[in-house]
Amino acid sequence: MERIERIREFGGWLERYTHDSTVCNCRMTFSVYLPPQAEAAAVPSVYFLSGLTCTDDNFRVKAGAQRYAAELGLALVMPDTSPRGEQVADAPDRYDLGQGAGFYINAAHEPWAAHYRMFDYVNLELPALVERTLPLIPGRRSITGHSMGGHGALISALKNPGLYRSVSAFAPICNPVESGWGRGCFAAYLGDDPACWKDWDATELIRAGAEPMPLFIDQGTDDEFLLEGQLRPEALSQACKERGIPLILRMQPDYDHSYHFIGTFIGEHLAYHARALTARS
Amino acid sequence: MERIERIREFGGWLERYTHDSTVCNCRMTFSVYLPPQAEAAAVPSVYFLSGLTCTDDNFRVKAGAQRYAAELGLALVMPDTSPRGEQVADAPDRYDLGQGAGFYINAAHEPWAAHYRMFDYVNLELPALVERTLPLIPGRRSITGHSMGGHGALISALKNPGLYRSVSAFAPICNPVESGWGRGCFAAYLGDDPACWKDWDATELIRAGAEPMPLFIDQGTDDEFLLEGQLRPEALSQACKERGIPLILRMQPDYDHSYHFIGTFIGEHLAYHARALTARS
Repeated sequence: MERIERIREFGGWLERYTHDSTVCNCRMTFSVYLPPQAEAAAVPSVYFLSGLTCTDDNFRVKAGAQRYAAELGLALVMPDTSPRGEQVADAPDRYDLGQGAGFYINAAHEPWAAHYRMFDYVNLELPALVERTLPLIPGRRSITGHSMGGHGALISALKNPGLYRSVSAFAPICNPVESGWGRGCFAAYLGDDPACWKDWDATELIRAGAEPMPLFIDQGTDDEFLLEGQLRPEALSQACKERGIPLILRMQPDYDHSYHFIGTFIGEHLAYHARALTARS
Repeated sequence: MERIERIREFGGWLERYTHDSTVCNCRMTFSVYLPPQAEAAAVPSVYFLSGLTCTDDNFRVKAGAQRYAAELGLALVMPDTSPRGEQVADAPDRYDLGQGAGFYINAAHEPWAAHYRMFDYVNLELPALVERTLPLIPGRRSITGHSMGGHGALISALKNPGLYRSVSAFAPICNPVESGWGRGCFAAYLGDDPACWKDWDATELIRAGAEPMPLFIDQGTDDEFLLEGQLRPEALSQACKERGIPLILRMQPDYDHSYHFIGTFIGEHLAYHARALTARS
């Protein structure tokens, strides 16, 4: 693990690292924000998973989250959205497949399966690495994300009961097997049988009996991708209702899909996670 | 004036406009953030002038300022950094001259003088336009900026006594006639005689007897442009000392020149301006 950047921010440090990933079989980049409290003692972590086309840079530059993290004493862990590199399969004419579009799943079909294992990367390899080397309390994690990354946060929590103290999402792709983005990626990464896709879909996981945990979601009503049916919070809401899973789904009037929307509500999400992360367990 | 974008943020609206500028003799773009308070009554404005290579977009995306503006009831007015367009003179191989590098002065030499009149644009034309058309209290303005824009904020305040209630800056170019950036632009825009440049230099204006007003500046100690002598806060500090002008110059340990630095301290700057803007006059 090599530190390639270190920037002073809100009394803490915004750092960027690269490392050889065994899981993704390539060099990976991530960022982490260490709040001032991490100088004295290890702190809890909130993982933020970004959306299509993003890298580890978008959230750290655009969301204004570091201010809240500094106030709350939380580290922010910001992974990339896919494996990268010349040897990594890509669809250069597509923004919604290949590099920048890992979908936080483990691909099963070539040429993708050789590198596209973002689920294991985000949930296993990266936490083990950062908790071994940085002042983070081992195992004390929550997770959130935006759009494709909101989907990633939801399936990470639902498929790993007990691993995250809390989960939230901004405008997540709630039911990717029924969205154009999800179907396009899942067909490539997982193969043609839609039955195999459901194991990577928050709504389908809940329908299939995932262990209940509270879900907290913000969604803008003027989000163009909501309007074109990519996000489907109504399907998730219905599944939660049928299973008795507590869902806070806030439809935020007039808000869109941008980081201006995320920035408006990230403070409330981090406060929500801080409560879970600092509760006695 | 045409509104080309409107984004919900922190309960207010982030808007972008284009208009035909008489002063710059071209189509200009700017952004404005209207806080929730502007729905009920006109609000005071803080102008933010960006640095080299920026447009009106950088500050609105990267600084996290809208949260504070919403709390404080301030509008943010975010102009572009230069005239733009195919017909506008440029130095395409230079990031520090031409489009994106207007330096907030009025050029006197061709080919620049036909469009590069950012001083009059920022201090006269744009405020008149936005105060006529948006819910902003006429004449109730403060100004701040970053790097080249910090220089712009300082000269705007010093050359227009009484026009701004308060002025602050982030890592400003304090003494451009002695910096590589400033000399390069001033020689092009103003001609070869350095005597003509001093009228657009905050330190020189103070030395020459500018009317005293308090100055508030944050400067990171690990700012690469400080270290290479582009910014020269020590020269401004000396000039203020000689003239008895109150200067708060905070050298912020370890901070760099980036928007992560601006984001860390913008809240304190906006609170400073809010106090000046809401004081009885």
